[in-house]
Amino acid sequence: MPEYRKDPITNRWVIISSERSNRPIEKAELTTSTSIFCPFDKGNEHLTPPEILAFKPQNSKPNDENWWLRVVPNKFPAVTQEKPPIIKKNGMYFSIDGYGYHEVIIETPNHNTTIAYMNDFEVEEIIWAYLQRFNEIKKDKKIKYVQIFKNYGPNAGASLPHPHSQLIATPIIPIFIEEELKGSKAFYNIKKECIFCSIINQEKKENVRIIEENNNFISFEPFAPRFPYETWIIQKEHNSNFGNLDIHLVKDFAKILKNTLLKLNRLLGIFPFNYMIHTSPFDNLNNSYYHWHLEIIPRLTNAAGFEWGSGFFINSVSPENAAQNLKSLEEGFL
Amino acid sequence: MPEYRKDPITNRWVIISSERSNRPIEKAELTTSTSIFCPFDKGNEHLTPPEILAFKPQNSKPNDENWWLRVVPNKFPAVTQEKPPIIKKNGMYFSIDGYGYHEVIIETPNHNTTIAYMNDFEVEEIIWAYLQRFNEIKKDKKIKYVQIFKNYGPNAGASLPHPHSQLIATPIIPIFIEEELKGSKAFYNIKKECIFCSIINQEKKENVRIIEENNNFISFEPFAPRFPYETWIIQKEHNSNFGNLDIHLVKDFAKILKNTLLKLNRLLGIFPFNYMIHTSPFDNLNNSYYHWHLEIIPRLTNAAGFEWGSGFFINSVSPENAAQNLKSLEEGFL
Repeated sequence: MPEYRKDPITNRWVIISSERSNRPIEKAELTTSTSIFCPFDKGNEHLTPPEILAFKPQNSKPNDENWWLRVVPNKFPAVTQEKPPIIKKNGMYFSIDGYGYHEVIIETPNHNTTIAYMNDFEVEEIIWAYLQRFNEIKKDKKIKYVQIFKNYGPNAGASLPHPHSQLIATPIIPIFIEEELKGSKAFYNIKKECIFCSIINQEKKENVRIIEENNNFISFEPFAPRFPYETWIIQKEHNSNFGNLDIHLVKDFAKILKNTLLKLNRLLGIFPFNYMIHTSPFDNLNNSYYHWHLEIIPRLTNAAGFEWGSGFFINSVSPENAAQNLKSLEEGFL
Repeated sequence: MPEYRKDPITNRWVIISSERSNRPIEKAELTTSTSIFCPFDKGNEHLTPPEILAFKPQNSKPNDENWWLRVVPNKFPAVTQEKPPIIKKNGMYFSIDGYGYHEVIIETPNHNTTIAYMNDFEVEEIIWAYLQRFNEIKKDKKIKYVQIFKNYGPNAGASLPHPHSQLIATPIIPIFIEEELKGSKAFYNIKKECIFCSIINQEKKENVRIIEENNNFISFEPFAPRFPYETWIIQKEHNSNFGNLDIHLVKDFAKILKNTLLKLNRLLGIFPFNYMIHTSPFDNLNNSYYHWHLEIIPRLTNAAGFEWGSGFFINSVSPENAAQNLKSLEEGFL
């Protein structure tokens, strides 16, 4: 029996319809290329724009080979710092010059790995790179939001297989963030509580959608997921600002990110996915109603006309079943 | 130089960034299968659920071979009429049993064609089928909205190549429609004019994004398109209700739909796409602020983490360039 479910934060509805999983459709494929040539490999530093940040031994030179993590501008940027963001009006239409930052975080020199198979130190270094760039870009008063994200696999929009994440910083707050802010503000005004904290409480009480937990974080399948095996990672203590993680939180966040991806990998095989960090915008980083988190969306199916037309998602795997399947890994059933 | 642009109806921003079109990414492929076996072919009527509607000569029997268009329930429905839509609450979470309609419009017995290559009569019959089902489902007071849509090609979510459209009718108004209603209502309250009528006026005045025009319709690239070659078809006269098209409008709508898709086909080759009809919900079909229209979204690129994370779209083809490229077809440049 299918079911409509409402996401409590955005009021977006989804259709959970397990019957749909029987229809004949090929699983999205991931071509794991044993690429001959890669601009993100060691020795090819001259093929990317000059580095913005690199983790490397002291006494290294900029753009030399001694790095274990590099951040470079995207060679094909969606936005640039050429012109300041000035609003232009033409009749009914508004536009702004494409001011912003578009950067690539090259996560490791190792071409053939993913976060699930890195060691703790490597994953922590990725988080530190996110934090450093987030807090550095914050100084640019023209920027309102930094979207940190990862595309893994061609079906998830990745054009290169080498492990990397990206960030795009814009003078505009993205609409999904606006919607989450609006929904969580409305909840706070009534209940005087953060809606995400309230979700964490209910998830812990029900314990049917939780995937992983450590001292500071839990990962779980949200109640109204758009995609099969959509998984969120959230800090247990209230924190609206991704930018102020301390060393203990970085360690625990790296650990849960790695372990959650590993579980998904073990169940789904190598699978295409996106993840993105949602946090408060720069002009309102510390508040009582919003709560930073990371959303993982496996790209096992293609959004189609219904989804694009309506914003309504049909999901053929209920989050309880997804959690159960991921849990049965631990119990040795798979 | 990239540019942010705001969709005037929903206030959704997009990034128009032609630089991005240089990045190495394969074009989404369409496998045109010369399928051996198809449940939508003539003679296989017993392989679909029994027909809800069929266009056929008088004296034909239900589910016989004499049809030129059939509507059947989706064999793998996202929603069904098993249980009435009653709201259930569990702590913070709300759900509703999956009441609704999910139907397939088999557009023609001809396995190997598309709307662009059908004759006028065939396309008009498709529109008549949409209208009949729309107006029939309207009688079910539990339903609030009918989303009519088409998936063409595996990359656009189609599991079968035989020409078909679908509809999903739900007791919930989809969030994108809610957003368009909200935006157009806000505009109307200030300007006392329909925002879509106002857009039509500006498009006709500027004449840099129009693709096709006839007596009753125009098709154009919207100012802030999410996708390269996203194209909208809209009735010129104000009309909030898709369900009340008369015979002349059906003819002109069929014509512009066919001609617009043909132009896109001639420029892009056989390409995967979705289209969807947006109209007012059943409880408010005739109003002054909303305007029904059809949106075509070519699926040449994959939405990635940035788009899914932020709701912000990066589009590598400006609508003016897209319109210019489509226009140059007429002028014999291509």
